[in-house]
Amino acid sequence: MNPEENNSLKRYLETKKKIVDDALDRFLPEEDCYPPVIFKAIRYSVFAGGKRIRPILCLAAAEAAGNKSAATSVLPVACALELIHTYSLIHDDLPAMDDDDCRRGRATSHKMFGENIAILAGDALLTEAFHLMARRDLMENASPQKLLDVIGEITEAAGYCGMVGGQVVDIQSEGKPVDAETLHYIHTRKTGALILASVRSGALLSGAGREELEALSRYGSNIGLVFQIADDILNVEGDSAFMGKSTGSDASRGKITFPALIGIEASREKAGEIVEKALAEIEKFDRRADPLRMLARYIVERKS
Amino acid sequence: MNPEENNSLKRYLETKKKIVDDALDRFLPEEDCYPPVIFKAIRYSVFAGGKRIRPILCLAAAEAAGNKSAATSVLPVACALELIHTYSLIHDDLPAMDDDDCRRGRATSHKMFGENIAILAGDALLTEAFHLMARRDLMENASPQKLLDVIGEITEAAGYCGMVGGQVVDIQSEGKPVDAETLHYIHTRKTGALILASVRSGALLSGAGREELEALSRYGSNIGLVFQIADDILNVEGDSAFMGKSTGSDASRGKITFPALIGIEASREKAGEIVEKALAEIEKFDRRADPLRMLARYIVERKS
Repeated sequence: MNPEENNSLKRYLETKKKIVDDALDRFLPEEDCYPPVIFKAIRYSVFAGGKRIRPILCLAAAEAAGNKSAATSVLPVACALELIHTYSLIHDDLPAMDDDDCRRGRATSHKMFGENIAILAGDALLTEAFHLMARRDLMENASPQKLLDVIGEITEAAGYCGMVGGQVVDIQSEGKPVDAETLHYIHTRKTGALILASVRSGALLSGAGREELEALSRYGSNIGLVFQIADDILNVEGDSAFMGKSTGSDASRGKITFPALIGIEASREKAGEIVEKALAEIEKFDRRADPLRMLARYIVERKS
Repeated sequence: MNPEENNSLKRYLETKKKIVDDALDRFLPEEDCYPPVIFKAIRYSVFAGGKRIRPILCLAAAEAAGNKSAATSVLPVACALELIHTYSLIHDDLPAMDDDDCRRGRATSHKMFGENIAILAGDALLTEAFHLMARRDLMENASPQKLLDVIGEITEAAGYCGMVGGQVVDIQSEGKPVDAETLHYIHTRKTGALILASVRSGALLSGAGREELEALSRYGSNIGLVFQIADDILNVEGDSAFMGKSTGSDASRGKITFPALIGIEASREKAGEIVEKALAEIEKFDRRADPLRMLARYIVERKS
């Protein structure tokens, strides 16, 4: 990315992050609601400095599909995606799962509030995500059928054939020799599925045609895959201050990663190739897809 | 209940339970899907001998509202309610929560599959519930807006202001002196909210008018409350072979219950009064509400 592109991306990310953060703050109950501990736990994890990549991809895909008011009309669904992402982090960090004490430089939910509240905070976030997606009062222009379609796609991405399935295989593969096929399964399900659903839901709710939707879906699949490879690389060599957790933690836990399978240089090359593929898929889109183009590069070049 | 009513109820429950069980079997993936452990865990808990009270209430409310094909047209939503109930049992039983080894006479999910898989099975069931509710292909006669309304109500009943909120207060109240107000909060949220939502969703999807819906809602609130009081009484004096878990376990855990607060006889009287109130609310309904009437009596008279 040249300096101008870099600035433009930075401004875009900042603007959109602010929109998403403000909306999440509006949509979630205050910390003093009863019983306060659950709302404290929810807000603690939702406002933990996340980059809001999934909601921003959703908004950017809506813009690419020609939705001028994307930042208001698909915002509840965009925020719902972030709630699902947050729930998955809370549950993944639990002692029975990855047993992480620290995330984004802060104590994980169960360290802060206890395991029982952390489990319930995750449950509540997952439930509230679908509550938000059903709120026609906030999305008057959305067709009810389209919203049901989006709920259908996002539940598929998050459920046993998506995120949950990926996490199950990831857990089962720890400390075992894993082949490329299994790694691909974990990557596409655990991270890729929800990223693809983020792109697709923004486009679906914004009236994308069949061909547009297919192109954006291929873009989304590639972005999802490259996101995980970039994460793996960061885990090996990232700055732990940036990552907010100890680097190299995947390796010490016997987790399978791309760098472990094909080496760090080959992983970096692979990531670059996939980004180019993603960009090629949306070549025919006009300037309104520029944010998606910048996001593709950002995902592979990010430092945290 | 006289013997004739009793037989009629028994037949009704058996018929509807079979319909719900068959549908759940159709809707859920087979155990040999990949990764098999999650589907085994899901089926283990879903087919653990549940009485299917929530789906049956949903179907009975649909019938009371005049829906002749309730058993097919609202079935996916009815099953979704059972999935949410099942997820809540799995997570409630976890070591970090109620730490129960045994439910319905069998090892709990985490005892059988490990804590990590139990957490994920619960997560997957909750997610799949909303997937089912969005499946217009299975509910062609349902209006998409009505389905969104139902998703909105059920997410509210299951989320931080419903089931999750009730569980949080329940956990926090263990071993502490609790007043009637707190007990009421726990009961209405932890059990009552989803039972009310079961009745309302069946009625909503079956074109109930405003007045009908209000009457059914008052019926549902009362039924929800009496369900929990009956559970409390069973916990004190039920046959542990029937209950499938040790009776008196609430007391030994310092859990607050109705019998502990007002005594067993007064609890029984209270339950009887509330059932009468529930029945009075649906007095104006014709014979098609008879299953709801039988269910009200069943809930307070059941032995397990």
